Amino acid sequence: MEPRIYATYWIETAFPLAQAAATMAGEQSTGTFVRVPGETDELREAHAARVEELTELGEVAVPSLPGSGLPKSGDATRRAARVVLSWPVSNMGLSLPNLLATVNGNLSELKAFSGLRLLDLKLPPEFLTRYQGPQFGVEGTRKLADVYGRPIIGTIIKPSVGLGPEATAEQVRGLVEAGIDFIKDDELQADGPHCPFNERVSAVMRVINEHAQRTGKKVMYAANLTGEIDEMLARHDHVLAEGGTCVMASMNSIGLPAMKVLRAHSQLPIHGHRNGWGMLGRSPAIGMSYIAFQKLWRLAGIDHTHVNGIDNKFCETNESVIASARECLTPMFDAPNKGCEIMPVFSSGQSARQAAPTYAALGSVDCMFAAGGGIMAHPGGPAAGVRALRQAWDAAVAGVPAEQAAKDAPELAAALGAFGG
Amino acid sequence: MEPRIYATYWIETAFPLAQAAATMAGEQSTGTFVRVPGETDELREAHAARVEELTELGEVAVPSLPGSGLPKSGDATRRAARVVLSWPVSNMGLSLPNLLATVNGNLSELKAFSGLRLLDLKLPPEFLTRYQGPQFGVEGTRKLADVYGRPIIGTIIKPSVGLGPEATAEQVRGLVEAGIDFIKDDELQADGPHCPFNERVSAVMRVINEHAQRTGKKVMYAANLTGEIDEMLARHDHVLAEGGTCVMASMNSIGLPAMKVLRAHSQLPIHGHRNGWGMLGRSPAIGMSYIAFQKLWRLAGIDHTHVNGIDNKFCETNESVIASARECLTPMFDAPNKGCEIMPVFSSGQSARQAAPTYAALGSVDCMFAAGGGIMAHPGGPAAGVRALRQAWDAAVAGVPAEQAAKDAPELAAALGAFGG
Repeated sequence: MEPRIYATYWIETAFPLAQAAATMAGEQSTGTFVRVPGETDELREAHAARVEELTELGEVAVPSLPGSGLPKSGDATRRAARVVLSWPVSNMGLSLPNLLATVNGNLSELKAFSGLRLLDLKLPPEFLTRYQGPQFGVEGTRKLADVYGRPIIGTIIKPSVGLGPEATAEQVRGLVEAGIDFIKDDELQADGPHCPFNERVSAVMRVINEHAQRTGKKVMYAANLTGEIDEMLARHDHVLAEGGTCVMASMNSIGLPAMKVLRAHSQLPIHGHRNGWGMLGRSPAIGMSYIAFQKLWRLAGIDHTHVNGIDNKFCETNESVIASARECLTPMFDAPNKGCEIMPVFSSGQSARQAAPTYAALGSVDCMFAAGGGIMAHPGGPAAGVRALRQAWDAAVAGVPAEQAAKDAPELAAALGAFGG
Repeated sequence: MEPRIYATYWIETAFPLAQAAATMAGEQSTGTFVRVPGETDELREAHAARVEELTELGEVAVPSLPGSGLPKSGDATRRAARVVLSWPVSNMGLSLPNLLATVNGNLSELKAFSGLRLLDLKLPPEFLTRYQGPQFGVEGTRKLADVYGRPIIGTIIKPSVGLGPEATAEQVRGLVEAGIDFIKDDELQADGPHCPFNERVSAVMRVINEHAQRTGKKVMYAANLTGEIDEMLARHDHVLAEGGTCVMASMNSIGLPAMKVLRAHSQLPIHGHRNGWGMLGRSPAIGMSYIAFQKLWRLAGIDHTHVNGIDNKFCETNESVIASARECLTPMFDAPNKGCEIMPVFSSGQSARQAAPTYAALGSVDCMFAAGGGIMAHPGGPAAGVRALRQAWDAAVAGVPAEQAAKDAPELAAALGAFGG
C-alpha cells in the first residue's frame, strides 16, 4: 500500500457537504473545471485525493467569510463540517514545499466555502528519509542547558530595539546573575545596524562564558539569526565559535526550505519563533491551526517553538495554547526516537501566577517558561523574579497551591502580589 | 534623514483609536508590558515606530474576530480605522525577513484588536542595494516570448496530477500547435515520482524546441521547480540546459530567502505562483493584501505573479483582482528602471468573455492572460480557443464590443457561445 498524507479541515459551506468535500479533493488533485483529454478513469483513481471522513458540525446562520457562492438548487442552508482528505505520497513526493501546495494551495480561495481551515496533518514516516527533524529536541536541550526535572526558566531581552551590543550584554549580565536558564533575543532584533548580530553575540557570550566559568552554569542564549540563508549560516558559525548553545529563527520570515538548510548545517538547537502566525492562526474561519503548522517545522528541524501562554496578553484562548503545547510533546511518528518531539515555549505576559495552571493543563515539566516583566518587574528584582518562578513550578509539581507555598517562599509571595490576581 | 519603512493597516478595535495605534507602534518597536531599566526617552525617540496617519472609518457593530478585549473605561464602541505606521530602516536593517517580523510579527495577535490587516507597504529604495528585484520583468519576458502589443496568451497543463513526462509533452504538443504563447505547470506538479521534473522538462522542451525550429516561435514554459533550495537550483540549470525560458516557484511554499537565492542564481524569468495566498488574503479582517504581499516578492526577484481573474472561479472580487494587477505594473521606487514592475498573470476560469473587462480595468496589455478550459474546451479545439482569446483582446484594444467583433471572427463567436454569458 502506498503511504498517504492525511489533512483535516474545518469547512463551512452552503453546498451539500459531500459535494463540497469532493470539490476540495478534486481541486487539489486531478480536477479542473472541465474534463480534459487524457484524463482517464484509471488516472483519476490512482491520483485523486480521497474524502476519508466527513462529519457535520451543525448549521451556520451567517457566512464567516465573504465571497462564497450558493448552490443552484436554491437550498442555501449553510453548514460547518470536519473533513479529512488523503493523497498518495507519490502525488507530490516527499517534499514539504510541495506538500504545502497540495494541502493548502488554492483551497482557501474556493467559492464553495465561506470558511476553510487546516486543522491537522498526518504524514507518513517516509518523510524522515528526506527531513532530519529536531536535532536536540527536549532531551538535547535539557542536556545543553543542564536543567532537569523542571521547566527551563527563560526571559527575553527588552527593549526589543534600541540597545547596542554592550548594553545588551549588560542586560544579560543582570539576567544570568539572577539565575535564569535561558535568554532569547526579541524577534525584532536580528542584525540591525545599531546592534549587529556578531558584535551582540560576542558581547553577550563573553558575559555568559565568564558566568559559566565562575559558577558552572552556562545560560542558553537563543541568538536571533533570522535573515538570508548565507547570513544565517555564517551567524550560526559565529554563535558556535563564541561558545553559544542555541540559535533562533523566525519561521514565517524564512520559510521551510531555508529552515531545512539551517538544520542541515546547525550544530545547535534551533529556537523556532512563530511571530507572524497570527495572520494564519487568528481567524477561526481561515488559515491553519498551530497543531498543523508546528508539525511542518518540527520535521524541517526546529527544537523549540512558541505556544503563547495561559492568560497571555494576546488573543489566543488557553485551550488553544495548551493544545499546541501538548502537540509539541506528542510523537509525530511511531518509530522509536523518531517522534520529533520538541520543547514548547510558554511566553507572553507570563508570571508565577501561570505556573500551576500551565502544569495542570500540560501534565509535564518538559517546557520552557519565559517571562519578561514577570521577572524584570518583580518587586525584589530579577533574581527574586527567577526564584519566584521556580518556587511556583515546584509548588505546582508538588500539588501545593501557590498561595500556600508562598507562606514559606517570600519571592513567590511578592510575585503573586505584584502580578495581579 | 534616515530612510523609513511605512506600513498601512486596517484595524478594528474597541479601544480609543489613538491608543490602539500607539499599542501597535510600541509592540513592534520599543515596547514591552512594563518599562524596563535601560529604556531611556532618547532610545524610545530614536527607535520607536511612529503613527503617521490615523483615519477613522466608522463604527462596527460586531467584532470581526474573536478574542479581543475591551477598554477598562466601559465605553465599548468598536471602530474601524486606517493606520499608517513607520519605522527607521535601522531598526531592522535592509532585510526582508526581518522586515516581516517588524511589519507583521505579533501584531495580528494583539488583544486590543478584533481585526488587523496589512494593506500596503512603502519601502525606501535602499532595499535595492540588497535585493535584485525582477531580472526580466515585463520587457524581458516579452522579449523571450517574442510577444508584443498584446497580452501573452497562456494556459496550464491539466490534469494537474497523473500525467507522466511523455503524456505531458504530448499535451504540450497540442498546445504549441494551437499557437499558445505560454504554458505553465500546475502548482501541484513539481517533482513527484510519477512525473519527475527533469524527465518532464526534457520531454516538454523537445516538443517546444522542435516547434520553434519549424516555426520560429519558442513557446515559454514555466516549469514548476518548487522544492528545497539545492533542488531548485539544479532544476533551473536543467531547464536552462534544455533551452527553456522560464521557471515557476510557489512563493508561499518556499519563503523569501529561498527566492532570493533562486533569483541570484537564475538566468530565466521566475513565475511566482501565489497558491496558499488565500490563507493570508481571504478574510478582510486579518492577514495581508496582495498589494503588500507582491511588493515583498518583486523585491526578492519574481518576474510574473498571479492575480486571479475577472469573474474568477474563486472568491476574490473583481475590484481586488484589478487592484493587484495594477499594482504589479506600478513602480515600487522612483529610480528609473528600478521600479520592479512585473507581469500580472490573469487566470482561473478565464475565457474570451473576460478580455474586454480586463482591458478596461487594467488599461494595459502588459499582462499574461491564462485560460485552461477556456482554451481546451473551445468547441473548435485548442487552436480555435487560442485564436478566440487573441480576437477578444484585439477587439478590446480597438474598443469594439466582443459580440460585434465576433461577427467577423468565428472562433470568438464560438467562444462567447460556449463560455456563458
